[in-house]
Amino acid sequence: MIRHSLLKSGAIAACLLSTPALFSQRTLREIQNIDRTEQIRAAIQGGRARHVIMFLGDGMGDSEITVARNYQFGANARMAMDTLPLTGEYTTFALQERNPDLPEYVTDSAASGTGWSTGNKTSNGRISTVAGSTNVAPLTTILELAQQAGFATGDITTADLTDATPAVLAAHVNDRGCYGPADMRNCSVYRKVNGGPGSIAKQEVDHHVDVLMGGGYSRFAETIDGGTYTGQTVLASAAAQGYTIVQTANDLQNLAPDQRVLGLFAPINMSLEWTGALAQPFPGSGPQTCTTGQRPSNQPSLEQMTTNAIHLLDTSSKGQGTGFYLQVEGASIDKQDHASNPCGQIGETVAFDKAVAVGLEYAKTHPDTLIIVTADHGHTSQIIEAPSSPSQPGAFSTLRTRDGAYMYVSYASQPVGSSQSHTGTQVRLAAQGPQAANVTGITDQTELFYLLGHALGVVPTN
Amino acid sequence: MIRHSLLKSGAIAACLLSTPALFSQRTLREIQNIDRTEQIRAAIQGGRARHVIMFLGDGMGDSEITVARNYQFGANARMAMDTLPLTGEYTTFALQERNPDLPEYVTDSAASGTGWSTGNKTSNGRISTVAGSTNVAPLTTILELAQQAGFATGDITTADLTDATPAVLAAHVNDRGCYGPADMRNCSVYRKVNGGPGSIAKQEVDHHVDVLMGGGYSRFAETIDGGTYTGQTVLASAAAQGYTIVQTANDLQNLAPDQRVLGLFAPINMSLEWTGALAQPFPGSGPQTCTTGQRPSNQPSLEQMTTNAIHLLDTSSKGQGTGFYLQVEGASIDKQDHASNPCGQIGETVAFDKAVAVGLEYAKTHPDTLIIVTADHGHTSQIIEAPSSPSQPGAFSTLRTRDGAYMYVSYASQPVGSSQSHTGTQVRLAAQGPQAANVTGITDQTELFYLLGHALGVVPTN
Repeated sequence: MIRHSLLKSGAIAACLLSTPALFSQRTLREIQNIDRTEQIRAAIQGGRARHVIMFLGDGMGDSEITVARNYQFGANARMAMDTLPLTGEYTTFALQERNPDLPEYVTDSAASGTGWSTGNKTSNGRISTVAGSTNVAPLTTILELAQQAGFATGDITTADLTDATPAVLAAHVNDRGCYGPADMRNCSVYRKVNGGPGSIAKQEVDHHVDVLMGGGYSRFAETIDGGTYTGQTVLASAAAQGYTIVQTANDLQNLAPDQRVLGLFAPINMSLEWTGALAQPFPGSGPQTCTTGQRPSNQPSLEQMTTNAIHLLDTSSKGQGTGFYLQVEGASIDKQDHASNPCGQIGETVAFDKAVAVGLEYAKTHPDTLIIVTADHGHTSQIIEAPSSPSQPGAFSTLRTRDGAYMYVSYASQPVGSSQSHTGTQVRLAAQGPQAANVTGITDQTELFYLLGHALGVVPTN
Repeated sequence: MIRHSLLKSGAIAACLLSTPALFSQRTLREIQNIDRTEQIRAAIQGGRARHVIMFLGDGMGDSEITVARNYQFGANARMAMDTLPLTGEYTTFALQERNPDLPEYVTDSAASGTGWSTGNKTSNGRISTVAGSTNVAPLTTILELAQQAGFATGDITTADLTDATPAVLAAHVNDRGCYGPADMRNCSVYRKVNGGPGSIAKQEVDHHVDVLMGGGYSRFAETIDGGTYTGQTVLASAAAQGYTIVQTANDLQNLAPDQRVLGLFAPINMSLEWTGALAQPFPGSGPQTCTTGQRPSNQPSLEQMTTNAIHLLDTSSKGQGTGFYLQVEGASIDKQDHASNPCGQIGETVAFDKAVAVGLEYAKTHPDTLIIVTADHGHTSQIIEAPSSPSQPGAFSTLRTRDGAYMYVSYASQPVGSSQSHTGTQVRLAAQGPQAANVTGITDQTELFYLLGHALGVVPTN
């Protein structure tokens, strides 16, 4: 241990100790004693952004962030997402479908995404539509406003592209399950055959988002039941509207700007990065070390998709002229938290963080970029003390971390073997660039819509 | 619902809806669309503070904050603690006693408090002493440094005054259980009879903290076994050192400044504000509304103690000359989270928030005041979806909230009926006043020591 004589105590023989050498990935002595006041002041920019990149870790509450940091980097290390200068927490509650005057304290990704993409609360399961409405009831999204203002737009995810978080930007439907034309049983007024805008897949294509990447090939291979492209697949309608359809990581390398890109790299969700033992009832699984490198090489990482999406948007005519709006979702943090799969969850968080690093690198040379890193809702996983009783509730796993210590991760919000619950906790949001100061304090998820809108100049400020 | 025509969508008939009238405790329309950039910029002050008030909600993670807000004020309302302009999250891990080179991912209040009060990590159970040491091994605290620099000092809590969080400022001992002279079995080298500094109670008095208030009368009534006051109680030694001892809320009203005050309002912990049904296994307790007004009138609220402490410190010679340092702990948020008692936990969070409001009110007329609001560690309670299965793990309760809706709060980190677990999640810290910008981003708990030290001018900046 390094003792330093910064301070001398009078009555008490005392010493200040730096933290042990193990935690030397960053030197505590170095960072602890710095006054960052001027640095934070300098990080505050008002005005407009030319580029906005919104990073969304699905289900990535503060607990999930800490789990990933402890495991992969060490408790005292810092991830890319930890380095954004301005930070706050926001509330995530939804509305009740049967009584939209009442809150639903635990949101799903659909209602939550509708919050930041439209500035409106809705009920769970709804994609950018009005809670309680039985008609086609769209709410304008930030992506739509950006498009109208001339920005290039992108929407990428590790999930099925028709999953809730990518959908909220470029689709309007009463039920998140209306993925493709064959899945419209709960959305009859939205069906093409009934004169509606169609499935999520169809709407995403018809929205002419410049860059769409993720999984969900099977949804886009379904056949449209009404309108101009009746009897054709969504893929065919995309090609007819100028989309280049790519299906492998390699194909992604060879794209020129100013073409619409629809990247579909898996039938439904993209593959996980890591595997490991699921959490189990007492005595739990593990102690375990996760198995990395599980993604097939023909599927791009979220990092690669982010790199390619930024390049395509930045070099496009619209990107060079007006700028771009890009949403990047790390989707399976949530899905693996549901599955009580700590290694899956951590691997996806680490992959998401690498994508954030790509955005931060871009911002170094493009300071007129607003970067947001946040989550849509909290989730189940908790770091707890070592369980010692057979009556320990739920399931847990012991993980050997980068620090060389054991971390006990518990999943106990729903019965063992069932999908675990989202939680209603407020969650972190972090930002840098124009308008970033508006994330500080406690805000609501709907306020992020206005922040994004002010940065893009598409929503007037009060 | 109020529809407003702020925006017009081209292709899509769309509308922006304000949130329903129920959420009108603050008008979303009013606050959502404001650019706070200049407000946040104006909130950034470097330099020195004359007064520092450190508010600590024990176990008050983001989940606990959200539970209390939803229940008492409504999901869309704002508490006093929500209004501080600069915010971040910090890591809270401790060290392992047997191998202090390794982290302990779940901290207790002793190790955690040692973090911000000394700038050093230690192991669970230690009060401002070095992890792994078998000798008397004190670490200098922020209160000691403030005293040396001429500040008036205060340390108040709803717990036993010898509990970990108040203790870390003004005591040094290897085991947090060494409350009073009769509790020294695990701290032999610290015993007075062995030439040590004595129990936590004795050390707090001997530190000459100007204002000490909380529970713990019984600890101070124990008999000292060595040194000048051998054979006398700690109370007697306090009186001999100039302390006025007060035991009721009324007595608190009649104190003049420039006398040391030892307020002891309960034998051990102070009474809870609220009661209600404990969480229970499926089908859970409730739906319930908490019973308020449980604190006996002869015990002051944390709000009253804060008001009195600020007045005493502010009007003292040291306060008028140099300034003051005050720590205010809402202790039983943690204790009732351990007990799976949602009403107890919420009542204590609400009481803590009222104390924060007192500090914020003081700061309005004393802008040279640094206010911090934070927690020492996360805790168990989670807001989950409505449980529907008899195999739901752990215990839960359904609460009827201010919004008129049901909130389901789960306790499932340890067996039902056992003390629930702290969690290892990063937790929120919020600040206003000089040096407040240093809470932004992700920091570690030990960095708060430096922030406090810079604000008081007692730790030089690198």
